[in-house]
Amino acid sequence: MPIRNPKFCPVTRALDIIGDSWTVLILRDLFLDGPRRFQDLQESLVGASPNTLSARLKKLEEHGIIERRSYSEHPPRAEYALTAAGRELGPVMKALRDWGSKQTSVR
Amino acid sequence: MPIRNPKFCPVTRALDIIGDSWTVLILRDLFLDGPRRFQDLQESLVGASPNTLSARLKKLEEHGIIERRSYSEHPPRAEYALTAAGRELGPVMKALRDWGSKQTSVR
Repeated sequence: MPIRNPKFCPVTRALDIIGDSWTVLILRDLFLDGPRRFQDLQESLVGASPNTLSARLKKLEEHGIIERRSYSEHPPRAEYALTAAGRELGPVMKALRDWGSKQTSVR
Repeated sequence: MPIRNPKFCPVTRALDIIGDSWTVLILRDLFLDGPRRFQDLQESLVGASPNTLSARLKKLEEHGIIERRSYSEHPPRAEYALTAAGRELGPVMKALRDWGSKQTSVR
């Protein structure tokens, strides 16, 4: 049953890349607010350590979902933005948001 | 900005309930295969300890997403099935599957 083989199951493949709550919240911010600086994400994702945030951003960058853009300003500025491939996650984010909207409480 | 308050952000609310990879894989199995016994899930979710699996099932049950059905057979049998509320996660699972299908490798 190939679909159940972790190598070929598309759900497993999706989770391998975005199956982490901080990762999904980073994506949420980039979808809702556009390009964000590290510091913006850190202020938004209360409870995520800088190391956790760095690791998640690096993984998303490696998978081509986001890109880091540097601006040679004074002081230099860098921000993270969704790539075209990253924007393909729109339906996943929308489905999560729609479902979450119908849930009544945080627990 | 109420949407960014964790209490009111629908994405946070969704993740609070299903933001765990094993949970999503349990849901995948129930969507694809219908009602499953604990043992079926354990065979499918290679690497999930029985405690982890129990905890995830319990949480899904508490949120009304799945229900545990007991059958008084010999030996007694119990299985887990999606509720009507659980089936509302269909679009989330479909979006994850569709996106995962387009990713080329497990990493």
